[in-house]
Amino acid sequence: MRVSNLVTKTSKNAPADEVAKNAQLLIRAGYIYKVMAGVYAYTPLGLRVIENIKHIVREEMNAIGGQELIMTNLQPREDWEITTRWDDKVVDIWFKTKLKDDTEVGLAWSHEEAIMTMMKNYIKSYKDLPVNVYQFQTKLRNEVRAKSGIMRGREFVMKDMYSLSTGQEQHEIFYQATIEAYKKVYDRLGLGQDTYVTFASGGAFTQFSHEFQTICDAGEDTIYVNREKGIAVNEEVLNDETLATLGVTRDELTETKSAEVGNIFNFGTDKSEQMGIFYTDENDTKVPIFLGSYGIGITRVMGVIVEKFSDEKGIVWPETIAPYKVYLVSIGAVATQADALYDELTSRGVEVLYDDRDERAGAKFADAELLGIPYRVTVSERLIADHKFEYTPRNTGTSELLTAEELLAKLS
Amino acid sequence: MRVSNLVTKTSKNAPADEVAKNAQLLIRAGYIYKVMAGVYAYTPLGLRVIENIKHIVREEMNAIGGQELIMTNLQPREDWEITTRWDDKVVDIWFKTKLKDDTEVGLAWSHEEAIMTMMKNYIKSYKDLPVNVYQFQTKLRNEVRAKSGIMRGREFVMKDMYSLSTGQEQHEIFYQATIEAYKKVYDRLGLGQDTYVTFASGGAFTQFSHEFQTICDAGEDTIYVNREKGIAVNEEVLNDETLATLGVTRDELTETKSAEVGNIFNFGTDKSEQMGIFYTDENDTKVPIFLGSYGIGITRVMGVIVEKFSDEKGIVWPETIAPYKVYLVSIGAVATQADALYDELTSRGVEVLYDDRDERAGAKFADAELLGIPYRVTVSERLIADHKFEYTPRNTGTSELLTAEELLAKLS
Repeated sequence: MRVSNLVTKTSKNAPADEVAKNAQLLIRAGYIYKVMAGVYAYTPLGLRVIENIKHIVREEMNAIGGQELIMTNLQPREDWEITTRWDDKVVDIWFKTKLKDDTEVGLAWSHEEAIMTMMKNYIKSYKDLPVNVYQFQTKLRNEVRAKSGIMRGREFVMKDMYSLSTGQEQHEIFYQATIEAYKKVYDRLGLGQDTYVTFASGGAFTQFSHEFQTICDAGEDTIYVNREKGIAVNEEVLNDETLATLGVTRDELTETKSAEVGNIFNFGTDKSEQMGIFYTDENDTKVPIFLGSYGIGITRVMGVIVEKFSDEKGIVWPETIAPYKVYLVSIGAVATQADALYDELTSRGVEVLYDDRDERAGAKFADAELLGIPYRVTVSERLIADHKFEYTPRNTGTSELLTAEELLAKLS
Repeated sequence: MRVSNLVTKTSKNAPADEVAKNAQLLIRAGYIYKVMAGVYAYTPLGLRVIENIKHIVREEMNAIGGQELIMTNLQPREDWEITTRWDDKVVDIWFKTKLKDDTEVGLAWSHEEAIMTMMKNYIKSYKDLPVNVYQFQTKLRNEVRAKSGIMRGREFVMKDMYSLSTGQEQHEIFYQATIEAYKKVYDRLGLGQDTYVTFASGGAFTQFSHEFQTICDAGEDTIYVNREKGIAVNEEVLNDETLATLGVTRDELTETKSAEVGNIFNFGTDKSEQMGIFYTDENDTKVPIFLGSYGIGITRVMGVIVEKFSDEKGIVWPETIAPYKVYLVSIGAVATQADALYDELTSRGVEVLYDDRDERAGAKFADAELLGIPYRVTVSERLIADHKFEYTPRNTGTSELLTAEELLAKLS
C-alpha cells in the first residue's frame, strides 16, 4: 500500500477529551476514529491490526476444536429474564431498544443465554456433547464511564467462546485446553512474558476462578505477582488460605497494576437448570448441561498492546500483528529504485507500506515511528550511490546499511 | 469436517412461524438459527457461506481500489439531525437506545453520515480525493414485518461502500467501475444470468438511478425485462419517455418478480452541503464533496441464492459459496477406506464434509441433498469390491462410478 493512497493521515494531536494513551496514539496515527466516548471506528490500518489479532485467536481456538459461528446483537427478553439477567439491577450495562410493536429487546453484551437457547435445538443426548463454539462479535455495553480508549469501550470486538459439556469431568478437559490455548495467544501477541493466569474468587464449583492479567500501568486491576514462580493473585483472594494453597508468602509477591486480557468462567449447571435445557445420558436420564464461557476482548488487547509497546515517538507493534511489516521511505528523486524495491518485497509476500509522498525525510521518519511499523527501510540518492539500503527496526531504532541481498534476506 | 463433530443437526421441520422458503431450508439444514422474527444466528456451516460470499465481494471491491474499514453501530444523534435523517418520520427503521446519562443514540441502519463525519478528519484538499472505502457491517433495521427470512432481516450483514469524490466527473469513474465490479460479483455468485442493472427513478443529478435486481419468485419487487437486449426497468419509471430513451417498446418487456441484490446511490453534494464538509480545490476554493453509496446485502444475497438454487430435496449451492465442496458418505464397515479418501482430499485442499455417522444410507443421502453440497462421493463395501467410488453432483443428481484416479482428477 502506498501512503499516498491511504485514506487516513497522521496528526500531531488527539482529541482534547481523549485521556487514554492507547486511543491518543491510535487516533494520531490514523488507526482509529473516535465517534463518541468509548465508540471507535477502525480505519483500513486499524482493521488490519484487528484482523491479525483475530487470525491468531482463530487459529488457537480452532486448534482445540472450537467451531466459529456468529450469534446476534438483538436478544429476546425472555431468554434473559429466566436467568434474572434481564434486570438492569443485575446487569447494569444493557443497551435496550424496542421493536415497532413496542416489544423490548436487548443488545448483546454477552451470549451465555443465547448459546444455550440455540443449542437446545441440537443437543438431545450425551452423544451430542461436548460442543465448543466461539464467535467474534461486536458487543455493546452501556458503560457509565469510557475513559480507557479501546481498552474499555461501549462498542468493541470480543472473541467469546462457550463450551457445553456432559459434566465437570468433560468440562475440565476443554477448560484446561483453553488455558493452554490462551497462553499461546498471548505469546504470539507479544504479551506472553507479562501475562499471568491469575487466581481470582471462585464460582460455585471451584476454590478459584482464573483470569488472564497483563502487567500494564494503564490497567484497571491490581494483582500480586511472583515472577520466578509464575504466580499471580487477584486482590480479592489475597489471604492466608490462598497463600498457603499456592505455596508463596506475601513477601514474595509484588503489587502491580494490570489489565484483564482474558477471562474464563465456569457456570456449571446453573444456566442449564434455570433455563430447563437438559440432555439425556446413557441411562436415558435427563441431566443438566455444564457451561463454560471464555472471553478475549480483541480491541481491548489491541489497546493493551499499544499501552505496553509504545514510546514518546509512537507505537511499536509486535511483528505478528503489525498492519504492515515494512515502512519503505523514499527520499529525493529515487522513485525508480524505491518502486522496484516495493515491487520486489511485495512479490515475495512481504507487506509494505510505501511512503511515496513528496514530503521531507523528517516527516516521513516521524510517521514511520508514530505508526510503529516494525522495519523501516530508507532509499535515498546517497544510499543508492553506495549500493546500500538503510534498515531500521522500530524497537531498537538502530540503523544498519545493507546491500539489496542482505536486506531481502532479513525481510523475506 | 466430520458430520459427527458438527454442532448442528438437520431436521425435518422448520419453525411453524417461518414462512420464507430460504429460512425454512436454511434452518432445516442447520445453517441458521432463528432468534426472533428477522433475527438469525449463523451456525458454523452458515458462517462458512457468509465468509465465502464476503470473500468474493472483498476481492472485487479491492480490485477497484476499495479499502476496507469498519465503522460503528452506535451513532451520535447530531450527525443525523443535521441531514434530517434522525427523524423517525424521515427514516422509519431506526433502532434507538440511550446512554446512562440519557443521551439518545442510534443503531446504524446505514453509514453515509458516519463516513462523511469520519472523513472530515482526513480530507482537506483535492489531493486527498477520491476516497473509496467499504465495510462488512451488521446493520440493524426496525422493519415492521420480517417475513422474508434472511432476505429482509432486522439484523443482517451488509457490504456498504462509500465513494467521496471531487465532483461528478471523478465520481462517474468509480460509479461505473462499481457497476462492473458488481456484475463480476453476481457472476461469481452464480446469479449473473438472472441479474440486471435496472433503471429506477433518478436522484437530483441523473435521469435514472441503478439497482441490481435478480429474477426471483420470492422477490418483493416487480421489474420489466428484455432478456435479449439485457434491459430491465423498475415499475416506477416504466413510461413512454423511459422506453424511448432505452430503445425498447412495452411489448418487448416481460413483467417479472425480482429481488434487489445491490443498490448504488448518487447522493451528489447533498450530504456535504448539509453537513458543511468541504475540500479546497486547486484555486483554494471550498468545494462540496460528491458522495456515492453502494450496497450489497450479504445475507440477503445468501437468501436469494437459496430461493433460486433449491429443489424439493433441499439447497443446491453454487460451488463458489458452498460451505464444503464434497459430501463424503460412508456406508457400512468402510471406515478405513473412507478415512483414507477424506485424508487424501483434505491434503489436496479440497473441503470435505465427511458423513462418518452410524446412520443408514438413505438418511445420509437425504442430508447431503438438504445441505446442498455440490458433490456427493459414496464409499461402500460393494463399491470397494469394484474399485470404484460413486460420484453424484447435487445439481444433476446423476451418479457416475469412478476410479480413485478419476475421482481425484474431478475434485482436485
